[in-house]
This record gives sequence, structure tokens and C-alpha cells, in this order.
Amino acid sequence: MPKKEISEAVIKRLPRYYRQLKHLQEQGIEKISSTKLAENLNLTASQVRQDFCNFGGFGQQGYGYDVAKLKNELAVILGLDKNFNLIIVGAGNMGRALAGYKGFDSDGFVISALFDVVTPVESINNIPLYNMDSLEDYLKNNNIDIAIITVQKQVAKQVARELVDCGIKSIWNFAPVDLDLPKGVVVENISLKESLFVLSYRSKNIHNQDEQNID
Amino acid sequence: MPKKEISEAVIKRLPRYYRQLKHLQEQGIEKISSTKLAENLNLTASQVRQDFCNFGGFGQQGYGYDVAKLKNELAVILGLDKNFNLIIVGAGNMGRALAGYKGFDSDGFVISALFDVVTPVESINNIPLYNMDSLEDYLKNNNIDIAIITVQKQVAKQVARELVDCGIKSIWNFAPVDLDLPKGVVVENISLKESLFVLSYRSKNIHNQDEQNID
Repeated sequence: MPKKEISEAVIKRLPRYYRQLKHLQEQGIEKISSTKLAENLNLTASQVRQDFCNFGGFGQQGYGYDVAKLKNELAVILGLDKNFNLIIVGAGNMGRALAGYKGFDSDGFVISALFDVVTPVESINNIPLYNMDSLEDYLKNNNIDIAIITVQKQVAKQVARELVDCGIKSIWNFAPVDLDLPKGVVVENISLKESLFVLSYRSKNIHNQDEQNID
Repeated sequence: MPKKEISEAVIKRLPRYYRQLKHLQEQGIEKISSTKLAENLNLTASQVRQDFCNFGGFGQQGYGYDVAKLKNELAVILGLDKNFNLIIVGAGNMGRALAGYKGFDSDGFVISALFDVVTPVESINNIPLYNMDSLEDYLKNNNIDIAIITVQKQVAKQVARELVDCGIKSIWNFAPVDLDLPKGVVVENISLKESLFVLSYRSKNIHNQDEQNID
């Protein structure tokens, strides 16, 4: 368990390490050096070693890392050694897409219900769709770890408050607003539009560089 | 136009500034101080001023920023003063969700076609779905700025190569793989799973902190 504060940048690299190790394991690779691991992830070997130092090291220098062991240790650090029960609030395009996405189950993230103010169907991809009216009761009677917010930005803050009032402590927020949440509640924002804007910025600037190079 | 290298962290904040200024404009707010803008975004005033310095400043100290003017300047920097034509490669859940998402059009991102190896329908949300066989011809005959990759990870690299061979210079990648792309091609990766893993890490660690506090 980490004793000191781990930086945001390190936290964001942990899933990438985990993914890479899973990939190596699938390929039957049993040992990997920090140099090779760094190369695969466009990092430096010293960065990899420093990152792992935050969690006690994971291996003896010169011998390389045991892929399976390191993957399992990272799984524990990331909390992936247990299952999570999730609900989705907002059954629009994004909510439906997430409900239909098959990739989360294998890592232990199980979506158990969707909620919306309109419920034209009873279920989406075999996940029941309930009216928002029943959210409170549902959260009382089911052990939900994470709520996914995929509602319109205008109502996202209110939905987040409702969820927190019902005891939710972890929110995955797809709405393009900063939710003001009390201490002790964690939120991870994911904004498609921000990512797309970063791409348009980069596109514009790399093309300008090209033009400058031509001049 | 930025003269020096802008840091990743600054680039990633630009869309957040833009979104905030748009929001302020919608609320009829005409002027904003760096202090207030910073507060709204959980940043410090000096960070905001430093960020804007990268692009020449944008305002006179003590007078606050003109919201509309700053928003428009950021739009130009982000490349949002022009329209982008996009295609989606991969018409699975994520590709379909993006095709159905209404939020991109208003910022000038227009999705003109989807491609997949299977084409059970002719269109998704009025956007035509074509077979991958016709990708090359389509890209020859249409001016496409950005390709969105939403295929399975096993084929993502190959799809990216095909796109680049057909002249695509900007890729928005939803597949959980690092695409090896030649210089001059920009890619922005967005990984739902990495974001979810960061959330599970935070959930686990904040809950452990809570338990430690109770002891």
C-alpha cells in the first residue's frame, strides 16, 4: 500500500503498465527488463524504476521483472483484484454505448442497472433500465461501488449530489462539468470533447510546423 | 501562433479554459479576472496567467479578461475556427455511439461516414456506413481531416497504417494500443479503461485512507 502521496502522472501511468504487462503475458513473455518495458511504453527506464519505487520496487535490479507477478501486484494496487458493481445514470447515446460495451466485465467491472427520467425500454443489452424515481431504493438495496454519470451537463451536478446523498463514493463522470463533490468522494472525469479539442490543436500546430518547414 | 514548445499540461488545459469561457458567455458574463477564472477551474491565478503567456497574454493585468474575445482567441488556438470532416473506422458500440452523439457538430466536427468490415445497415444515425474496401477511394475523393479509430485492438495498428497511407494526418484513437505512427501524423488516444482503472485506484486508496483515519 502506498505510504506517501503518489503524483497524478504516476497514477495515470499505472493502467498503461498494467495493460502492457497483460499484453506481454498473453504473448507468453515471462520476464521483462525496465529498459524494454520503458521502450514499449515510450518512457525511460529510470522513469519506470522510479514509478515502481513508489510502491516498493517490485523486483531486483539486473534480473528484470517477473511479468505475471508484476501484473498481479499492479492489479492489487489498481483495485482490480476485486469486483466492482456499477450503475449508469443517463441512458442516452453514451450510457447505452457503455451498457453495450463488453470490455469491462473481464476486469471485474459489472454494470448492474441503468437509470433515466425516461424509460422507453425495460433493458438495454440485458441490463435493466429503471426510472430515476427508484434510484434511492435501488442504492439502498444493492451494493454499488461506482456510479457512471452520462446525463446532460445541465443536470449532472444535481445527479451527482443525489448519488452522493445515497452513499455513492466513486463517480465516473462523462458530463462536461466539474462536479463539486464533498471530501471522501472520488471522481474521474472523462471528456471526449476535450480530447478531440487537444487533437484539433495538435493537428493545427503540426500542420503549421510543416508549412514553416516548407518555407 | 505559439512560437515555443507548449507543454502537454498546458495543451490539456486549453479545452477546459475554452469550455469555461463558453459557459461564462452563455451566462452573460462579459469580464473575468484570472483569479476568478482560476477558481472556477481549480487552478491558481498565476497558473492561468502563465498558461496564457504561452500565447501572448490575452489581456491587461488589473482589467480582467474580455470573455468573448478570450473565448474566440482560444477557439483559433484550438483550431475551432474552422470545420473538420471526420470519418469513423469501426462501427461497433463505440463507433455507433460516436456517430449518434450530437455534441460534436456545434463545434465544427462533422462525421461524414463510418467504415467497417461488416455493413449490416446502410447508415447509422443518418451517417452512411461503408465497407472497408471502399476506404481508399473515399479518402481520395473526400477531404477528411480526422479519422476516428474504434476497431478492436488487434487490428487498430493495421487500420492506422492504412489511414496514414491514404493521407490521413490526424487520428483520434479509441483502441487500447499505442499506434506507431510516422512523424507528421498526430494521434490523441482516449482510453475508457485507463480512466476507469484510475478511478478504481483512487476509490481503493481513498477508502483505505478513511479506514486509517478511523483507526
